[in-house]
Amino acid sequence: MSKYVYMFSEGNAKMRNLLGGKGANLAEMTGLGLPVPRGFTVTTEACTRYYEDGETIEKDIEAEIFETLAKTEEMIGKKFGDPKNPYLVSVRSGSRASMPGMMDTILNLGLNDEVVTGLAELTQNPRFAYDSYRRFIAMFSDVVMEVPKSLFEEALDEVKASVEAIHDTDLDEHAMKQVVDRYKAIYKEQKQADFPQEPRRQLIEAVKAVFRSWNNERAIIYRRMNDIPVSWGTAVNIQEMVYGNMGNTSGTGVAFTRNPSTGEKKLYGEFLMNAQGEDVVAGIRTPQSIQQLQDIMPDVYEQFIKIADRLENHYNDMQDMEFTIERGQLFMLQTRNGKRTAAAAMKIAVDLVDEAMISKAEALMKIDPKQLDALLHPTFEPKSLEDASVIAKGLPASPGAASGQVYFNAEDATEASARGEKIILVRLETSPEDIQGMNVSQGILTGRGGMTSHAAVVARGMGKCCVSGCSELSIREKDNYFMASGKRFEKGDWISLDGTTGKVYENAIQTIDATLSGDFATIMEWADEYRKLKIRANADTVRDAVKSLELGAEGIGLCRTEHMFFEPDRIFAFRQMIVAKSEAERRLALEKILPMQRDDFAGLFKAMNGHPVTIRLLDPPLHEFLPQEDQDIDQLAEALKISADDLKTLIADLHELNPMMGHRGCRLAVSYPEIAEIQTRAIIEAAIEVNKKGMQVIPEIMIPLVCDVKELKYVKSVIVDTAEKIIAKAGVKLTYLVGTMIEIPRAALTADEIAQEAEFFSFGTNDLTQMTYGLSRDDAGRILDTYYQKNIFESDPTAKLDLIGVGKLMKIASDSGRASRPNIKLGICGEHGGDPASIAFCHELKFDYVSCSPFRVPIARLAAAQSALSDLDQMGQK
Amino acid sequence: MSKYVYMFSEGNAKMRNLLGGKGANLAEMTGLGLPVPRGFTVTTEACTRYYEDGETIEKDIEAEIFETLAKTEEMIGKKFGDPKNPYLVSVRSGSRASMPGMMDTILNLGLNDEVVTGLAELTQNPRFAYDSYRRFIAMFSDVVMEVPKSLFEEALDEVKASVEAIHDTDLDEHAMKQVVDRYKAIYKEQKQADFPQEPRRQLIEAVKAVFRSWNNERAIIYRRMNDIPVSWGTAVNIQEMVYGNMGNTSGTGVAFTRNPSTGEKKLYGEFLMNAQGEDVVAGIRTPQSIQQLQDIMPDVYEQFIKIADRLENHYNDMQDMEFTIERGQLFMLQTRNGKRTAAAAMKIAVDLVDEAMISKAEALMKIDPKQLDALLHPTFEPKSLEDASVIAKGLPASPGAASGQVYFNAEDATEASARGEKIILVRLETSPEDIQGMNVSQGILTGRGGMTSHAAVVARGMGKCCVSGCSELSIREKDNYFMASGKRFEKGDWISLDGTTGKVYENAIQTIDATLSGDFATIMEWADEYRKLKIRANADTVRDAVKSLELGAEGIGLCRTEHMFFEPDRIFAFRQMIVAKSEAERRLALEKILPMQRDDFAGLFKAMNGHPVTIRLLDPPLHEFLPQEDQDIDQLAEALKISADDLKTLIADLHELNPMMGHRGCRLAVSYPEIAEIQTRAIIEAAIEVNKKGMQVIPEIMIPLVCDVKELKYVKSVIVDTAEKIIAKAGVKLTYLVGTMIEIPRAALTADEIAQEAEFFSFGTNDLTQMTYGLSRDDAGRILDTYYQKNIFESDPTAKLDLIGVGKLMKIASDSGRASRPNIKLGICGEHGGDPASIAFCHELKFDYVSCSPFRVPIARLAAAQSALSDLDQMGQK
Repeated sequence: MSKYVYMFSEGNAKMRNLLGGKGANLAEMTGLGLPVPRGFTVTTEACTRYYEDGETIEKDIEAEIFETLAKTEEMIGKKFGDPKNPYLVSVRSGSRASMPGMMDTILNLGLNDEVVTGLAELTQNPRFAYDSYRRFIAMFSDVVMEVPKSLFEEALDEVKASVEAIHDTDLDEHAMKQVVDRYKAIYKEQKQADFPQEPRRQLIEAVKAVFRSWNNERAIIYRRMNDIPVSWGTAVNIQEMVYGNMGNTSGTGVAFTRNPSTGEKKLYGEFLMNAQGEDVVAGIRTPQSIQQLQDIMPDVYEQFIKIADRLENHYNDMQDMEFTIERGQLFMLQTRNGKRTAAAAMKIAVDLVDEAMISKAEALMKIDPKQLDALLHPTFEPKSLEDASVIAKGLPASPGAASGQVYFNAEDATEASARGEKIILVRLETSPEDIQGMNVSQGILTGRGGMTSHAAVVARGMGKCCVSGCSELSIREKDNYFMASGKRFEKGDWISLDGTTGKVYENAIQTIDATLSGDFATIMEWADEYRKLKIRANADTVRDAVKSLELGAEGIGLCRTEHMFFEPDRIFAFRQMIVAKSEAERRLALEKILPMQRDDFAGLFKAMNGHPVTIRLLDPPLHEFLPQEDQDIDQLAEALKISADDLKTLIADLHELNPMMGHRGCRLAVSYPEIAEIQTRAIIEAAIEVNKKGMQVIPEIMIPLVCDVKELKYVKSVIVDTAEKIIAKAGVKLTYLVGTMIEIPRAALTADEIAQEAEFFSFGTNDLTQMTYGLSRDDAGRILDTYYQKNIFESDPTAKLDLIGVGKLMKIASDSGRASRPNIKLGICGEHGGDPASIAFCHELKFDYVSCSPFRVPIARLAAAQSALSDLDQMGQK
Repeated sequence: MSKYVYMFSEGNAKMRNLLGGKGANLAEMTGLGLPVPRGFTVTTEACTRYYEDGETIEKDIEAEIFETLAKTEEMIGKKFGDPKNPYLVSVRSGSRASMPGMMDTILNLGLNDEVVTGLAELTQNPRFAYDSYRRFIAMFSDVVMEVPKSLFEEALDEVKASVEAIHDTDLDEHAMKQVVDRYKAIYKEQKQADFPQEPRRQLIEAVKAVFRSWNNERAIIYRRMNDIPVSWGTAVNIQEMVYGNMGNTSGTGVAFTRNPSTGEKKLYGEFLMNAQGEDVVAGIRTPQSIQQLQDIMPDVYEQFIKIADRLENHYNDMQDMEFTIERGQLFMLQTRNGKRTAAAAMKIAVDLVDEAMISKAEALMKIDPKQLDALLHPTFEPKSLEDASVIAKGLPASPGAASGQVYFNAEDATEASARGEKIILVRLETSPEDIQGMNVSQGILTGRGGMTSHAAVVARGMGKCCVSGCSELSIREKDNYFMASGKRFEKGDWISLDGTTGKVYENAIQTIDATLSGDFATIMEWADEYRKLKIRANADTVRDAVKSLELGAEGIGLCRTEHMFFEPDRIFAFRQMIVAKSEAERRLALEKILPMQRDDFAGLFKAMNGHPVTIRLLDPPLHEFLPQEDQDIDQLAEALKISADDLKTLIADLHELNPMMGHRGCRLAVSYPEIAEIQTRAIIEAAIEVNKKGMQVIPEIMIPLVCDVKELKYVKSVIVDTAEKIIAKAGVKLTYLVGTMIEIPRAALTADEIAQEAEFFSFGTNDLTQMTYGLSRDDAGRILDTYYQKNIFESDPTAKLDLIGVGKLMKIASDSGRASRPNIKLGICGEHGGDPASIAFCHELKFDYVSCSPFRVPIARLAAAQSALSDLDQMGQK
């Protein structure tokens, strides 16, 4: 039979999955002999049962709760519901991971009209007793019975006004009794029933409320954002009350063993005398710094310091503790590894190693790679931010902070940039036509589109800040203004964006650049000592290449050549190529692009200084390069010297029902081998040119969207024929690789055949995921909302690597690819390449490298190290 | 070392893959001691080498050819190129499968200016010698050297005119010499070189020409249509010449052991005296029936009859033979299992069993299931067809013949149908809006779209004839006419379509209906004795259900409910549902549809009389149900009592970038569970109603487009809750199954999880193939043409089941599905379900059933029997 309830004395810190974080640590502290009020934990498995049983607590679990309650009654010599010697409890939630958004705490549970009089007598403190009772009624009504909190706050204010009291502490016993009566009346009016007087019913209802709160909307959103599975459930901690509100020798507070903002090694915290925990949070009185406790109660302070030291040494990490002092006696209510800023996390990790408390490996395992993101983008200078006013809030689509003058189209933005202005590009939504405008902007703001919209994906790729889907804005692109908070912002006006929070500010705000130095640099060095995976970056420009090297990239894993075609000086030639009626005409247009593209590649090769560079041949469907608006079409037709009607017909002909599964990728190279040929020429000629200067460039030419080995073979033959001719003519030696993206399910399924032609595989998990799910990222918005609501998906399946479906394809592909070409190079590009969970999976599949956007390189380095360390750990356990 | 050349005496009929069909049978006849001119075969592997070596015959193979040539010289005592005793040969192609479109024959090879004089002397027949030479020059120039045939024909006509000859036989020795001189001059003018005089060079060039012809355009097209892989290659047969043109005791002919049109057991064929094979084909003189040979050369006839009997008994099948008589001596030049009409195939198979020549199992294996198609659709009455005139030709998109009056939109067609007219629906291309119009039509004719266009797929599903992509037509839908062959066809004019040939005729033509009776019925009974797979039909209407039962279906494997929504009396209610702003409004609209849909299902259940019926819940994206044209939108908006602008906004909102991977399938049921609920009500209520009349309906409710077990679980819960309530309320017992389509790669990859909820899997290989390939069928047209040209694809990958990619997913899914639910029912629906190769694969995976369009049911029955028999055969071999 399962055991659903554990006394604190029965558990320990290792039982976190079963007891939740709070419960496990209370048990651990109890085991260490620290002063912890006695109690017990209802397990996370009971929560799972609650949902399985149709949101109800079955008799067996209820019985176990009361049996354990009875045991604690014996231990402490008080009885639950006994007016003469009442046992009151707190009820707190506590899941494996700390989760704001869930129900937190109910204090003083067990009180009723009778018990409160007993408590008053026993403590000889009726004011305290009725204060406790009124707090309990309000908390219970609010969090368990869903009676609006504001009703109680209003009633309290009214009583205070009637006795001319300013603070709660000004209310005497009689006023408190009056508050209790008012609260009970409110409850009765709202629930058409008396306030529950039966302590056992109060307890079970409170436990249910905790379980229920696991699935409230805020909790669901938090879980989705933090990849916490719904299956974990929450535990419930039931603990003997201790009182910080029993007069001037009582109090309550929170403290960290080190500063959670800076990491400084110094006790950091605050407390309030004569108060319960909620008062600290509510900010009714200004708390005192923890150091001031030394003056007020030196013994208690001394004891607390010792406990804090002991806990930090026991957990080998910075601790976040809650405590209560009841009439001069210290009680520990919680300890946990403290949350900290990214900067603090770095400093603490390095300091703990310096203090010989933990090893380098342990330090690396302590840092959440995702947290590094905050260190890798510009942020607003905190002082300047204080005076800034928020005009709207959208989705935090790409992190970082930026200020600039607003422009509403790519052309204006490009011109303004040429004048040296800083730009925020504001669009309803972006399309590939906007690439150049995005490229010259400091940040991008869109009115529509989600976290995986075009704007969001491209901005993250470029490492630019982006706020997307800001529906509060009313954007008039054609009239060059937008409205926000009732104010009109014209072309050229300054605004600021915070892509980490989604906030949009009026005016310019000073920013601070990110640097990889100090503790951060130290952590990165340590990560490099352990990791097995190479880390590459996705970079299309010299600027990105330089940035990625700076952040530790060891090569470029994906250079998308199509972005290069959007540059204003070549989009025209490219469009000429698209409208060309013959191969000869197409070649003429391509020849114009050749020297520019060769310079692009030469620049990249030089910047990467001998590191490998993977260049993907043209991928998107051609219609993405043509304008859609009548006016633009007319203009283009004139420039191309064809009729607008002809151009419209051509654009209509290029239209596809499902462009994602249409004429793109290597299918373009099959139709127009001259495109692949010119791109190969640009790559090989650039490599030869750069190698002449003494570098050792080994270009990797990547063929996208392969679904059958024969198409790969065909395009490869075009590449190899072209390359060999150039190399022979130049009379040099040049090594280059030809490989393919694995981004279509069939490519993964037939990887054994494909590997016979491909010298490397780069998994394009963006497209692979969409096709494996049969779900288009661009169309998923409407679908996903409903799927979240109905708990079908817990997060956007295209946003992280799906290990069981897509992962199975990746495993099939890597196994069978290696079987037919043992030395095949395996990597991943696309956004998943920078996600720690995906990196762990790539490590497991023994990939050679992962490639991600430049700003995620440090995250990838750390995640790769953690994967390698987990291996060591598992080997150790065997 | 490989052997690339086999004497006829070294081979036999089992070596077909290596020697080709013709070569293997020549060897077999040689082995049987029949009078076969001596010779040898260059193997299909030599053809493969030819392509591997860069379209050249390497020295080793050339040497082997000449060595074998030398051996045959010794055997027959003549020498190749020796004017005194010349050895002349024929060169013929011969692949594994008989393939029109490839190079056929070169006769008299080995002749040159010198040898021809020797031949004249030796035979004492100079006219014969020069006749043979001029034939050789023309054939060699045409098929080997690509000199246009017409030049030779013109020259021959000129010579004939100059000597006032009518027939070739009227030309004497001198005239023939003149022809030879003219021919050599033509060759020299065209090729800037003398006609090749070196017999060995002639031979090697001829062999190369045969190999080359394996990859000419006609051969490629034929292979694609008949699923013949390019890797097979062709063999070349080189054989001593015998002459049917040596005077009146010589002749040549072809004969079948039974009538290839009717199957009647009677020698059938024709011959020409004093002629070479090409004369029979060219139809210069009218050949005589084979029976007339008895009068002319009774001994030869007697000998031939005996050989024909012997060959039929030897091969246990009807034989198609070529023979030549040289100066009274009979030679066999070819035998093979004769091609026959579908009707003849049935009769011959049944007769051969009756004659105890073969077993039932062998009879079944002899019939090509695809051939049955011709027996399953109406055909034009042959007499009426004689006077019909073809006005255009399109793609043979869905077989059958039909006549009707032309209408250009679904509405007019529906009205005309209500008046009792027969209709041919003519559209530029069809869309789901046209379903109702297609449904009331006899046939469909479209101006655009390929073999897998919407019109083609739907028509095949409905079993209606369809000619698609008829680009010769100029169709003006709005003006209600089309132009063809310079003639204008107005609304209401009669035309006729042959969906088997793609031809479009003027006026009505009488048709004959298909029946499943006589020999055909016998064959089907035998097939049912052997097959393991159940055969179901895809049927949406009672008419289809009845037809499918008639053709032997054992259930409905796919009933698409969406077609039902297009019926004119309910499309409006369905559109009301789409524009509804709340669940309540949606329910109101759905309630209107409920009784109609319940009647549909009750009708189907009754028609199927207890056989299982799988009903798929609504699948297509909602935008497919809304109009696209301004005028239609205005009309609908008025009817719906909303503004046209609002409706346009709604239609724009529903627009998707990649609708195939968008909001459709079970995703609709997740968004609007009330749709699934109403459909379930209709199904369950109909089943209860029908069961009350004593039937035993077990409905199978199928959830489409599942990619994750959780969405299946959710929709299933809606279905089960609804069904259980109705069943409980009705107080009856009803068994029903809930299952899913496997049509998204991830569903196949996670089939173990999905099988925990699904009681059956139906593989939707149409969508599964497209997503596995990342290739949209609707957008593939442009891509495929290039892929065929470049030999990357040999046929449309979405048109047949891809065993190595999609097949791997199917195997993963069926294995892991069975592992988690051993009794899970597995089937396939979609067009592949009627394809023999796919059926063999489904048999191999031990599926329970295949489901196909009603008219393919007999094909599936036979193919399933053949799969089972192949198993037995393989077990026998072990």
